[in-house]
Amino acid sequence: MAGNTFGTAFRVTTWGESHGPAVGAVIDGCPPGIPLCEEDIQIMMDRRKPGSSAASTPRKEEDIVHILSGVFEGQTTGTPICLMVKNKDAKSASYSTIKNLYRPGHGDISYQKKYGVRDYKGGGRASARETVGRVAAGAVAGLILKRVGIQVSAFTLELGSVRAKKLDMDVISQNPFACPDMAAAEKMAVRVEEVRKDGDSLGGIVQVQATGVPVGLGEPVFDKLDADIAKAMMSIGAVKGVEIGAGFEAARLTGSTNNDPILESGFESNNAGGTLAGISSGQDIVVRVAVKPIPSINVPQQTVDLEGKPETIQVGGRHDISAIPRVNVVCEAMLNLVLADFVLRQAQVRALELFSS
Amino acid sequence: MAGNTFGTAFRVTTWGESHGPAVGAVIDGCPPGIPLCEEDIQIMMDRRKPGSSAASTPRKEEDIVHILSGVFEGQTTGTPICLMVKNKDAKSASYSTIKNLYRPGHGDISYQKKYGVRDYKGGGRASARETVGRVAAGAVAGLILKRVGIQVSAFTLELGSVRAKKLDMDVISQNPFACPDMAAAEKMAVRVEEVRKDGDSLGGIVQVQATGVPVGLGEPVFDKLDADIAKAMMSIGAVKGVEIGAGFEAARLTGSTNNDPILESGFESNNAGGTLAGISSGQDIVVRVAVKPIPSINVPQQTVDLEGKPETIQVGGRHDISAIPRVNVVCEAMLNLVLADFVLRQAQVRALELFSS
Amino acid sequence: MAGNTFGTAFRVTTWGESHGPAVGAVIDGCPPGIPLCEEDIQIMMDRRKPGSSAASTPRKEEDIVHILSGVFEGQTTGTPICLMVKNKDAKSASYSTIKNLYRPGHGDISYQKKYGVRDYKGGGRASARETVGRVAAGAVAGLILKRVGIQVSAFTLELGSVRAKKLDMDVISQNPFACPDMAAAEKMAVRVEEVRKDGDSLGGIVQVQATGVPVGLGEPVFDKLDADIAKAMMSIGAVKGVEIGAGFEAARLTGSTNNDPILESGFESNNAGGTLAGISSGQDIVVRVAVKPIPSINVPQQTVDLEGKPETIQVGGRHDISAIPRVNVVCEAMLNLVLADFVLRQAQVRALELFSS
Amino acid sequence: MAGNTFGTAFRVTTWGESHGPAVGAVIDGCPPGIPLCEEDIQIMMDRRKPGSSAASTPRKEEDIVHILSGVFEGQTTGTPICLMVKNKDAKSASYSTIKNLYRPGHGDISYQKKYGVRDYKGGGRASARETVGRVAAGAVAGLILKRVGIQVSAFTLELGSVRAKKLDMDVISQNPFACPDMAAAEKMAVRVEEVRKDGDSLGGIVQVQATGVPVGLGEPVFDKLDADIAKAMMSIGAVKGVEIGAGFEAARLTGSTNNDPILESGFESNNAGGTLAGISSGQDIVVRVAVKPIPSINVPQQTVDLEGKPETIQVGGRHDISAIPRVNVVCEAMLNLVLADFVLRQAQVRALELFSS
Repeated sequence: MAGNTFGTAFRVTTWGESHGPAVGAVIDGCPPGIPLCEEDIQIMMDRRKPGSSAASTPRKEEDIVHILSGVFEGQTTGTPICLMVKNKDAKSASYSTIKNLYRPGHGDISYQKKYGVRDYKGGGRASARETVGRVAAGAVAGLILKRVGIQVSAFTLELGSVRAKKLDMDVISQNPFACPDMAAAEKMAVRVEEVRKDGDSLGGIVQVQATGVPVGLGEPVFDKLDADIAKAMMSIGAVKGVEIGAGFEAARLTGSTNNDPILESGFESNNAGGTLAGISSGQDIVVRVAVKPIPSINVPQQTVDLEGKPETIQVGGRHDISAIPRVNVVCEAMLNLVLADFVLRQAQVRALELFSS
Repeated sequence: MAGNTFGTAFRVTTWGESHGPAVGAVIDGCPPGIPLCEEDIQIMMDRRKPGSSAASTPRKEEDIVHILSGVFEGQTTGTPICLMVKNKDAKSASYSTIKNLYRPGHGDISYQKKYGVRDYKGGGRASARETVGRVAAGAVAGLILKRVGIQVSAFTLELGSVRAKKLDMDVISQNPFACPDMAAAEKMAVRVEEVRKDGDSLGGIVQVQATGVPVGLGEPVFDKLDADIAKAMMSIGAVKGVEIGAGFEAARLTGSTNNDPILESGFESNNAGGTLAGISSGQDIVVRVAVKPIPSINVPQQTVDLEGKPETIQVGGRHDISAIPRVNVVCEAMLNLVLADFVLRQAQVRALELFSS
Repeated sequence: MAGNTFGTAFRVTTWGESHGPAVGAVIDGCPPGIPLCEEDIQIMMDRRKPGSSAASTPRKEEDIVHILSGVFEGQTTGTPICLMVKNKDAKSASYSTIKNLYRPGHGDISYQKKYGVRDYKGGGRASARETVGRVAAGAVAGLILKRVGIQVSAFTLELGSVRAKKLDMDVISQNPFACPDMAAAEKMAVRVEEVRKDGDSLGGIVQVQATGVPVGLGEPVFDKLDADIAKAMMSIGAVKGVEIGAGFEAARLTGSTNNDPILESGFESNNAGGTLAGISSGQDIVVRVAVKPIPSINVPQQTVDLEGKPETIQVGGRHDISAIPRVNVVCEAMLNLVLADFVLRQAQVRALELFSS
Repeated sequence: MAGNTFGTAFRVTTWGESHGPAVGAVIDGCPPGIPLCEEDIQIMMDRRKPGSSAASTPRKEEDIVHILSGVFEGQTTGTPICLMVKNKDAKSASYSTIKNLYRPGHGDISYQKKYGVRDYKGGGRASARETVGRVAAGAVAGLILKRVGIQVSAFTLELGSVRAKKLDMDVISQNPFACPDMAAAEKMAVRVEEVRKDGDSLGGIVQVQATGVPVGLGEPVFDKLDADIAKAMMSIGAVKGVEIGAGFEAARLTGSTNNDPILESGFESNNAGGTLAGISSGQDIVVRVAVKPIPSINVPQQTVDLEGKPETIQVGGRHDISAIPRVNVVCEAMLNLVLADFVLRQAQVRALELFSS
């Protein structure tokens, strides 16, 4: 079974390659009666567009989303919503040099050996362009969350080893790195420029969180809320690690320091990151995601060709210095998808309330 | 939709509560013709048994696994394999004091609010006893992996802030913490005794790895090999973080230092942790898992009762100091399940090879 | 992917072979808070027991159902419900003669060639004994339907070419064939005795129906209510045809005679059988199921052995004359499963009602 | 969970409404390396086009299929294949009169009550136009079957109570009803003209069959080959009954006349319709499908409006007299989808053959 569908109740299937005619997503399971127009989606789409941040490629695309189905007279009908974004500005010619070489850190070699064929133009499905479908679907999921009172957001906690020391949410939109610490953002800018001169790239850490989450979301034992979040985040191309709440730091605490005491007024701390035994506790969901540096760099690297002979490769062209901060909105989209899915799944647990009345 | 099934091709559904008649698992999708007897499973089961390690509870259970279906004359038939382990030694009486209190760090409060009812005896499905089914099924998955040449193992990288500095696989079986560094193991023993006196508990980090993995396992874009591994590990009760290869450290590297060069003889390094674009590259799979301290501690903690009134709770009884090292075999079992699933899923990609002959 | 699970929201996985230690089912997705004890299930189980009808085998089994999980203090908890029935009275010796022969009309040959191995004792999973799990799970589903006001029932419309001409529901329990026409039941008894003397067997038609079905159940476009019913019924071993409402007769009507006029008081007729465009209309669900004659007959038949050499086979032993009426309760169970599944799935469509309050 | 996806290994999700911008399908799970171009699909698409048969509507559409993804340099890549057909010629104005009335025999009333909203223009997802996606995907499935040696075809067995008495496959393409009996086809023409004058419509029976089917396809116990076929066929809008092999007639046979004797040279008859215990036996798959008359008729009918007040409705406009023979290719497409799915699923059963070498 192939793996291009995410979610069980709010199901999203993304399709499309970087250099094909279009990319998009089909959502099956969106409840009826939700007002939805293309503008609702475009707002989120614009945040992941190339050229929208300091660390990104100058490649320009309009990325206009088209709703092909599932909406009638301005509201969802409960039927599949197909979202499409046409590809533009694809200069396949510039990829001809890498047709016969495996780029280190990329999926070229694993795709070729898995499938026996490979769309070498822009990486096919392994391209970050696949996330267009995720973000578009995530925007629709966000409309469901809004009804429930859930708000998801992401920011850059760390970039190129520069870590935010303050978490001032008001300044996130005031710097090109979506960083909650203006002083850190300035250091990030310096670090990005250094690395850009080297033709190299950077990784970092994104923090994603959700407020207003009702208690009871998540399905034991395998589809725990945190398990599905971990999958959602790790399914984003550049992600190498995921932690919830205290995360890896929890491994160094004792039970008495890690447990969140429960007061009459609520939990005293949030080491759990909003989930207990895989079910939301009503606290904020707090997730941190490790993003590796972009593998396409303008630096000579050792590799082999399709026949296994050694070669040197230097990937020029239009590439980002870091997936951050463009990936932040993808992380938000994925958390939207997970939470919308569990909101709908929780309806099953409470189904008899709907029918007994 | 409830969430007690894991896998899409090799599907495992676990069932059972800590204090009910039995726990177990049903496997659907195991190929036919594999020799299988109860002994094959019992070996792995014995490693997760209470009382089998230095940091565990003295509660004794025999945990004898029974194969109820799916095996005929000593081999699998391709039909569902139901595995059952009867519960014994359950002293429900000892849980009566916590019937009306939410234990901090436990799922009591989230289960109660999600379902409106809660099996307060031993935690129901949130009990570590649920992992009996995972380990039993993981043992069967291991037989498939054996055919393919894959070997999965786990060890304790860190316990109570004591980290292994050497990775000597030969000594793992020579100390009660499954630690690959004897000197570290001795320090762990000291730390465990300190904490035991305090009535407190410890967390740590488990490393799980697989060797002999063929290239091509994993399904883009959502069911990436690393995404399903992240879900598998995070679905284990005590886990708060998962990283693959360089993991969170990759966030601090540059592209030129993080990319694994490809030589004629293979990859020069393994920062990727064995997966490129979500598909196995043929390198070892390397995963690290952050395990929080056991929440049940013999220390007074603040909580509330079912009506929300403040109370103090002190959980006595038979509890482990740390989920490590008993959880190590659970991590192995989960990696077994993920890999067996992807071995079977890869058969679909190559299906026409089987029919063209 | 193997196929031993039915349903998407109310998911049932059956397991077990006729001559193994036990048979059973695991239900995942049953809502919490439903009172459930073994007696609730046993009532329905007793109706499918061997020896309970005029056309059935004298093989005696107690078929006592055990609830192994998912119920706490007398009510469901929302966690998996494992149901087990131990096998008894299996005289495997009596099957040794058919070990090397394919019985005509049975799955011996297709199982052997699909899997390369075959549980020849009693047919393994292809045995009617597999329906124990279906009926047990169907009984639990029935408790959900009861809450919603749905009532499912089945009767024998035709047996051995004798068709009921009256549909008097009151007499169904008054004859051993579950026939709503006492005169027809008497003719059925004569026909059964004729065929028993010949060592032969009979087929027939079962009608299954549901009353009190709310409008809105069923999911377009593939998981239509009638599509899932068709699958559910055809998945029962002996079934060769399924029709809804006017069924095959609708093929001979015109639009003006087949369409059910809609009056202020409701539909004037029910040629649709309770479903419009795959969604329940609020009318009764009416399904008819064609059941083939039992293939095991005490008459010499031509066949081949495992090597393909011609042989004559005569299957003696304890076999039913007809799957009817024992299969009737299996049909009910399957309709229960379909309807309970769609009740829970409809909760997703209406999910926002639950969260907006 | 919504229900717009069919198949587990070869998964097809259809999307789109009759009067929206486009309709289409996404296929996930198509193996890589299969040559595929738009022409391969268009051939099958042209057979379901409006205006292509004697009993169909004069509405003209070009129905040109576009491949948006999943194909690279002329062959499949193993990634999702998105197929799109733009809608044209939609005169929504002509539907304004039925905006407030429920058409008898249509899903208007059940959709409205299920979702609370309804795309009244052309029936939304309940329109026969939804089958565009099925046929497009079915054409791709057909390419997989071709590799395996399977050939699927359908013909009109009965139309307006006129039944084919000869099954001469050579004449199917020589008459506008796809009937294998020229004399019957002539009678069908007469019957169609009679009914057209009355403004009424006709039903009939389609026979679908597959030759060259390898033994071993189908997954016990719920996903039996015949169970999935029954679901596939019943999920087509107009279908009210499905039978396999002898079907309802089997209910009137005895075991000795219904069982297909097994000779050294193969089966002597095919009452089973190609499936034993839900697994293909190597014989031809034979399925018959009851198609109800088109509910949209130019005859006054009783109905109610959205408020439940009685009204008379007469549906003019461009409508077919019968779904037959346009639905025949939809039946073929659905059988293609079922068989391709089981071919891929059988690869899992045999997976270890691929990895042991």
